[in-house]
Amino acid sequence: MARVNNFSAGPAVLPEPVLAQVRDELLDWHGCGMSVMEMSHRGKEFMAIQAEAEADLRALMGIPANYKVLFLQGGASLQFSMLPLNLLPVGGKADYVLTGSWAKKAAAEAKRYGTVNIAASSAETNFNRIPVQSELKLDPAAAYVHVTGNNTIFGTEYHYTPDTGSVPLVSDASSHILSRPVDVSRYGLIYAGAQKNVGPAGLTLVIVRDDLIGHCRDGAPTMLDYAIHAENDSAYNTPPTFAIYVSGLVFKHLLAQGGLPAVERANVEKADLLYGLLDRSGFYNCPTEPASRSRMNVPFTLANAELDAPFLAEAKQAGLVQLKGHRSVGGMRASLYNAMPLAGVQALVDFMIDFERRHG
Amino acid sequence: MARVNNFSAGPAVLPEPVLAQVRDELLDWHGCGMSVMEMSHRGKEFMAIQAEAEADLRALMGIPANYKVLFLQGGASLQFSMLPLNLLPVGGKADYVLTGSWAKKAAAEAKRYGTVNIAASSAETNFNRIPVQSELKLDPAAAYVHVTGNNTIFGTEYHYTPDTGSVPLVSDASSHILSRPVDVSRYGLIYAGAQKNVGPAGLTLVIVRDDLIGHCRDGAPTMLDYAIHAENDSAYNTPPTFAIYVSGLVFKHLLAQGGLPAVERANVEKADLLYGLLDRSGFYNCPTEPASRSRMNVPFTLANAELDAPFLAEAKQAGLVQLKGHRSVGGMRASLYNAMPLAGVQALVDFMIDFERRHG
Repeated sequence: MARVNNFSAGPAVLPEPVLAQVRDELLDWHGCGMSVMEMSHRGKEFMAIQAEAEADLRALMGIPANYKVLFLQGGASLQFSMLPLNLLPVGGKADYVLTGSWAKKAAAEAKRYGTVNIAASSAETNFNRIPVQSELKLDPAAAYVHVTGNNTIFGTEYHYTPDTGSVPLVSDASSHILSRPVDVSRYGLIYAGAQKNVGPAGLTLVIVRDDLIGHCRDGAPTMLDYAIHAENDSAYNTPPTFAIYVSGLVFKHLLAQGGLPAVERANVEKADLLYGLLDRSGFYNCPTEPASRSRMNVPFTLANAELDAPFLAEAKQAGLVQLKGHRSVGGMRASLYNAMPLAGVQALVDFMIDFERRHG
Repeated sequence: MARVNNFSAGPAVLPEPVLAQVRDELLDWHGCGMSVMEMSHRGKEFMAIQAEAEADLRALMGIPANYKVLFLQGGASLQFSMLPLNLLPVGGKADYVLTGSWAKKAAAEAKRYGTVNIAASSAETNFNRIPVQSELKLDPAAAYVHVTGNNTIFGTEYHYTPDTGSVPLVSDASSHILSRPVDVSRYGLIYAGAQKNVGPAGLTLVIVRDDLIGHCRDGAPTMLDYAIHAENDSAYNTPPTFAIYVSGLVFKHLLAQGGLPAVERANVEKADLLYGLLDRSGFYNCPTEPASRSRMNVPFTLANAELDAPFLAEAKQAGLVQLKGHRSVGGMRASLYNAMPLAGVQALVDFMIDFERRHG
């Protein structure tokens, strides 16, 4: 079968040239006679791969020199604990903005370690929007402010960087990292599971300002201390080497495309194409407020929920897969990560127009 | 370049037929038009891959029905914390047998959570042996007894299963899992980083008896609770999907070879070949006691340490790589994991005989 158009929310589509390179190098990386999977993480070949991946990520995101890049494991869910264990002093407090399921999970985990202030929430409208700056009830004494930069399930995204004064801003950027330029210096810490825009599942990126490292609380597991990983260049123990390698190829691919400004232009074009149809249509409906819409995850419903099953079946026949919406929202969800080509979104839109014509 | 003979201690050589299959399926798994890396962990394709991997592992190891298999992240190093957080009650105590660097790290981490009794240690002889049963000073009130089944750095391995009475036996089996049959019912919990005999780095296997799940201490990070992962079939959050897939292919490969009894026979033959040379030679020396020798990791030294560099350089020329010993032991180390063919060990032995002839 030919490659399909894969709208999975994650793990998600990867750039085909990257996959082809991984395939070609799979049994013998650069003539060394080994797969990257078979290399010691302390050998010169893999250390060069990791160093290059970090350098390319730094170039791509413009990461300042006073930020460390950590290649970790455990996903954003482990960061929900690692963050307060490292940044929230005993007896301290932190601000959380609730914009969906993942934000709630992050806040719930932080509550185990200190006081959590809900600075704002869009729960009342089923998380269909991102609170604006003036809504944020920030505590100047908070240890940090936590936002979920993009909400994979509810399809919303911050299109502004919250001003948190001197309080470090922390973002769970799992589902929109590398999709647009970001001023890293506005953040204290950015974390992201790799399995959307970065690479294979099992790798977690943490970008953290130097001064926020080294304050892990006593008794926390050693592996949850940012300092341990920073001091050991992410090789305190064996890192997820193959995932780092694939992610490094993705970074190089994005640089070759013109970096994040070019990536953003492509993502805007793709999102506009699909949202345009949703807004013109009386058959499809998008639950999110226009100003808060995610470019990465587009939830939508059909006029009649009984058409969901035929829609999914016919879409699959047309090579458009993994469109089923998250169980907590229902309907459909099209994820348009970096590696989804414009042609894939066009194919989806064409299919949707045709489906409406036949069933509307 | 042709594939080399890779003696890395981990990440380590993988079976070439498995790598070839991974390569062939890389852009399109079984005609679904996606790479395994691109599949939702909740989609039917990946869920089938994971279920099959678990079923094959259960068949391979004969895992009883009252044990859960968990596919986790973080390596053995995270298990050093997760284990006491789940099995050691507040105020409780645990027995640890010290047989090397990893055992010491495991014990040090457990000390953060309770009382650690050193049941035995071979530190006095630089960890060149495994304590025998009669040396173990076991506490009947211990929550568990922890052993390091194979010691990657010092090259020793348990060739008996310690009798711990009714106290659960826990083994860090990272560097010898799947290398020999094991009676899982003798253990309360077995854990292993994947990157030696299982698959790519970034996956950690935990095999745990049902009754030991559900006792995680209050305030521990949610992600460190075995119960959360058991209840969610290792998909509480996104698991390391690609590593699970590759490991599943390795399980199938080992089953096709005749299962662990056949794997063990091959490993004994390989180890005998190399140890035989070491014991006959006056030029090479093996620091480990014969009864404790690991079949997986064989450390050895040359008569003259000044020959180390030429040995490594000439070995590399002969396609024999990653032979440098761990910095805490020095000399050489040849890791003979399952995927190292007998021909690879024969090539090493032939090279060593020739090297001795020329330099001895």
